[in-house]
Amino acid sequence: MLVGGIEAGGTKMVCAIGEIDEVSLKERENIGAVQVRILERVSIPTENPAKTLPRMADFFAGRGIKALGIGCFGPVDLNKKSNTYGYITKTPKEEWADCDMAGTFQKALGVPIGFDTDVNAAVLGEVTWGVAKGCDTAIYITVGTGVGVGVYCNGDLLHGLVHPEAGHILLQRHPKDTYAGRCPFHANCMEGLASGPAVEARWGKPAIELAACREVWEMEAYYIAQAIVNYTLTYSPQKIILWGGIMHQEQLFAMVRNRVQEMLGGYVQHPLLQGSLEAYIVAPGLGENPGIMGAFALGLRELA
Amino acid sequence: MLVGGIEAGGTKMVCAIGEIDEVSLKERENIGAVQVRILERVSIPTENPAKTLPRMADFFAGRGIKALGIGCFGPVDLNKKSNTYGYITKTPKEEWADCDMAGTFQKALGVPIGFDTDVNAAVLGEVTWGVAKGCDTAIYITVGTGVGVGVYCNGDLLHGLVHPEAGHILLQRHPKDTYAGRCPFHANCMEGLASGPAVEARWGKPAIELAACREVWEMEAYYIAQAIVNYTLTYSPQKIILWGGIMHQEQLFAMVRNRVQEMLGGYVQHPLLQGSLEAYIVAPGLGENPGIMGAFALGLRELA
Repeated sequence: MLVGGIEAGGTKMVCAIGEIDEVSLKERENIGAVQVRILERVSIPTENPAKTLPRMADFFAGRGIKALGIGCFGPVDLNKKSNTYGYITKTPKEEWADCDMAGTFQKALGVPIGFDTDVNAAVLGEVTWGVAKGCDTAIYITVGTGVGVGVYCNGDLLHGLVHPEAGHILLQRHPKDTYAGRCPFHANCMEGLASGPAVEARWGKPAIELAACREVWEMEAYYIAQAIVNYTLTYSPQKIILWGGIMHQEQLFAMVRNRVQEMLGGYVQHPLLQGSLEAYIVAPGLGENPGIMGAFALGLRELA
Repeated sequence: MLVGGIEAGGTKMVCAIGEIDEVSLKERENIGAVQVRILERVSIPTENPAKTLPRMADFFAGRGIKALGIGCFGPVDLNKKSNTYGYITKTPKEEWADCDMAGTFQKALGVPIGFDTDVNAAVLGEVTWGVAKGCDTAIYITVGTGVGVGVYCNGDLLHGLVHPEAGHILLQRHPKDTYAGRCPFHANCMEGLASGPAVEARWGKPAIELAACREVWEMEAYYIAQAIVNYTLTYSPQKIILWGGIMHQEQLFAMVRNRVQEMLGGYVQHPLLQGSLEAYIVAPGLGENPGIMGAFALGLRELA
């Protein structure tokens, strides 16, 4: 049996087909017990809906997928009772505002569509098959072009009123940071201070060219750690998956873990929060695939 | 039918008995459809376990309660698989550390015991019978002697790894605030900067004597609003219930709502987040009773 997955991002649309053993899906109610193999994957540039969506639909058409899951850049409407369920809503990418993502593929392919944010898809992938398997509460943080947080909470993806936007939480500034921040909405938010473009604007070079500058990564670790402390205190997650372009500077993991330990100040008592935090703050278990695997899981949940 | 409830606080233990129509409980799976009347309530000073717990148990003994719910000051162990489930764990109130709250009353009374944090009990009360009825995601913030946040998320109380400690999130300092903060664990956390004792220490008088000082409440609104912005971005709650001793300064509600609107910067789009936020940030619907009503609900859930 085949299932489709889309990671809909602001620069590219990753579309993939996964293969699963149909018998195993029917016999098990636990999607995590089903193995999915990625059969094929394409990346289509995100231009505009009129041009990009038909190319994406063409990739899936006639392939016999039984369901499709979409993890989408946002903000999106996740309220199934809303007239605009499955839409991208207000986004700085103006051509994509009010775009009916779920409906477009439902009409084009006639299969059940699972739909959620890109980061919720990623945390779902990790909870279903990855490093957070078995957790009822876990988060996936991506620090890259933007900062996003996918939240799995009490055994389900968190939507609430809209969906979490925890990449924009307000933070205490680093005492040596004179950079104004690059979020147009908030003076001192995580994304505005710690995203890849913020690093580049603050230091005048892309992150990748700053790898040897300890000062750069100390400041970055300060912000990431502060956000993680606040996520630890708000969500009480059993696992924090940390990824995104910035985290390819892998020296950051140890720096962030040390800073988190220091900032938590021993306040929250749990064996997982003792020592080096290596089992608490982790890279994805699915490598570069949590988003696309999570999209498959979104699709499979619609079948289950 | 009678049910017991305990609000276990650091200064007093409120013990109450509630009466419900037994038929209605059996006929309905939705506890919110059952009306509970508070029949009797006592307040017992929190001294030490050896002295205080027997007095509490005596109050309930022989009254025929069918279940008991406890909303307890923390940190507490909420993991039902743990050997210390139902215990207060590490607390600055040393005599209460490692105290088996749930087990003590289970042994004394022989009825099912529901157990959670004090603030989780309060949010459960409001979600079951109060102003957050019908919400699947809502939070209860108390700003008083300490700052605590009860979290109801995806249709259940949030525990995760331990339980949320969102009263300790790290905040940006107010530019005019020179007070060092009074949390022994964190330099710039919400509780350390905005609790009642922090207000008193910063300004040299108890909050109640500062009612006319606009500067005091502007700074307080700044911290409360900043925390609420972060809770809005992390939990995406459908309702925020704000209470505690500090909020008896009722002028604070409008100041906090205005500041939240300003700090959110229009980023999260939802009808509830437009305008004055009067339907989003609210006082409890159960007056002074969300904690004790939530304790009843914790007990009733053990019967259901």
